[in-house]
Amino acid sequence: MLHGANDPFGCVSEALQLVEENLARAVRSREPALTDISTHLIDSGGKRVRPMVTLLAYFAFGGQRTQDIVDIATAIELIHTATLLHDDIIDGAETRRGKESAFKKFGLKSTLVAGDFLFIKAFEFAGKFDESVVQWTADACTLLTEGEILQGHFNRNRAVTIDDYLEIVKRKTASLFHTGAKVGAYLAGAPSSFVDEAERYGLNMGIAFQIVDDILDVVGHVDLLGKPIGMDLRDGNPALPIILAVLNGDSAVCDAFESGKPSEAQIAEALAAIKTGAAIQEAKSLSKRYAKEALKSVKKLPPSMYRNGLKTLVQLIIDRDF
Amino acid sequence: MLHGANDPFGCVSEALQLVEENLARAVRSREPALTDISTHLIDSGGKRVRPMVTLLAYFAFGGQRTQDIVDIATAIELIHTATLLHDDIIDGAETRRGKESAFKKFGLKSTLVAGDFLFIKAFEFAGKFDESVVQWTADACTLLTEGEILQGHFNRNRAVTIDDYLEIVKRKTASLFHTGAKVGAYLAGAPSSFVDEAERYGLNMGIAFQIVDDILDVVGHVDLLGKPIGMDLRDGNPALPIILAVLNGDSAVCDAFESGKPSEAQIAEALAAIKTGAAIQEAKSLSKRYAKEALKSVKKLPPSMYRNGLKTLVQLIIDRDF
Repeated sequence: MLHGANDPFGCVSEALQLVEENLARAVRSREPALTDISTHLIDSGGKRVRPMVTLLAYFAFGGQRTQDIVDIATAIELIHTATLLHDDIIDGAETRRGKESAFKKFGLKSTLVAGDFLFIKAFEFAGKFDESVVQWTADACTLLTEGEILQGHFNRNRAVTIDDYLEIVKRKTASLFHTGAKVGAYLAGAPSSFVDEAERYGLNMGIAFQIVDDILDVVGHVDLLGKPIGMDLRDGNPALPIILAVLNGDSAVCDAFESGKPSEAQIAEALAAIKTGAAIQEAKSLSKRYAKEALKSVKKLPPSMYRNGLKTLVQLIIDRDF
Repeated sequence: MLHGANDPFGCVSEALQLVEENLARAVRSREPALTDISTHLIDSGGKRVRPMVTLLAYFAFGGQRTQDIVDIATAIELIHTATLLHDDIIDGAETRRGKESAFKKFGLKSTLVAGDFLFIKAFEFAGKFDESVVQWTADACTLLTEGEILQGHFNRNRAVTIDDYLEIVKRKTASLFHTGAKVGAYLAGAPSSFVDEAERYGLNMGIAFQIVDDILDVVGHVDLLGKPIGMDLRDGNPALPIILAVLNGDSAVCDAFESGKPSEAQIAEALAAIKTGAAIQEAKSLSKRYAKEALKSVKKLPPSMYRNGLKTLVQLIIDRDF
């Protein structure tokens, strides 16, 4: 990826460094287990896309109080990390970001409590702001839980539609993107129409981000992803390429998706079928459609290197291979 | 229990009713599973001791804005409920308050997410207040998680001391009592020495409360408790009567406590040994010592029916059989 003055990392790199310092401080606990579990995940190289969107939106609207936006960006990353810990319990995931998952390494009980701990730390950061910011942050978290339940409902369930998928993604993935962007614009003092535009940006780029994630679970590389491919099929997750292949009537994919415990041969066959069919291309088109919507919002923002950062970020999200 | 003008229930019954209404509203979700799981536990007759302490402390110091204190009392009960859902997952508990536990009824995944959901709702309520209140509420939650980890460390571990026990209880049980009392006094505008006194009251009565809980797990009755007795021995929890019996050198209790999966015969023998030994009397003395400390704080408060309520509550806590 790029690293220059106008790229999304370069133009907020100092603030991102402060987010890292906040994260490291936030997870200090008198109980080493809580610090160890939190650090295990936080230090394993997350992309920090959510804090980045939050910071870029703030600076794009002329925000000046770096420490404020760093605190709310930290809250957003902490919430994301908390949900990853709990998601790994729910999915029984063995690996995450190329390492043993916290769930596998530290066990269910401590990982569950560490997730709670990170949620609490997030609200310590978010609680410093006015009622709107607290409410939007809480709303994003509520959406995350409601997304998790909806996703569970469509686990191994071939009745799932594209609309169901988009609803899950809006709740589970896009919520922290659009909340970060919205809070960033709001705290920078942007007029409410721009706050809405920032929110739309976050929503659309969050959906594009998740679609690419789903595609990479089929066509990605284990070394770059930090986890085996085909996890969605193994877990029965209603990911977009699976849904599209099912809708296209692919019986190998249907069988693997609906099977309580698909064999490795079934998964390999289903992955091959998804790759050779139209699903990946269809999914890519859809991700590009949402990326294009996000770019429309970017165009409406005042010109700055941060606006350029928001634009480049969309492109990087679409083109990434991890 | 009493129900009159000067008893703890009677004198805050209207505000407690508003807490119930808040709780019912808070758990509404577009995902029926989240509402069902939350309601399953909230409607199962919790004692609402934590909101009661919060409300009594507020009114005892002349607080007038009922809706404010009702909101924070709601937050405290929501946090308590969230931890019960997660605790039942951690303990693999089958029953809670005389009903099937949410974990048993709805499964791990949905129960975990519902616990997160309730934490979030709690912070929605708490986030309306100033930074001190948010920080204290978050601190109480952090203590809860740190208490859970410390308790896990001493699970089936006979190295546990009375000091370890008190540290666990301060974190896991007393935290929401002392935070509720402290926030109540603070929001009522009490001078800081009184805010500290209210906090001390909550701390001491919270410890007394937990000791009585531990005693009831040995000598209580299943129909009143809503769960079988002997659960602490089954789960290997470092409860006070067990610790005291172990310190008194009772080998049947040691064996049952240390055993990974004690038989029903082992548990029955250990319970009988605890009952015939000195542990229960010793535990009762300790609970009375903390109750007495709580009453010392009450004496320092300005006279009112709410002060009387705080006093009677301590007595009810000590004398209860459920």
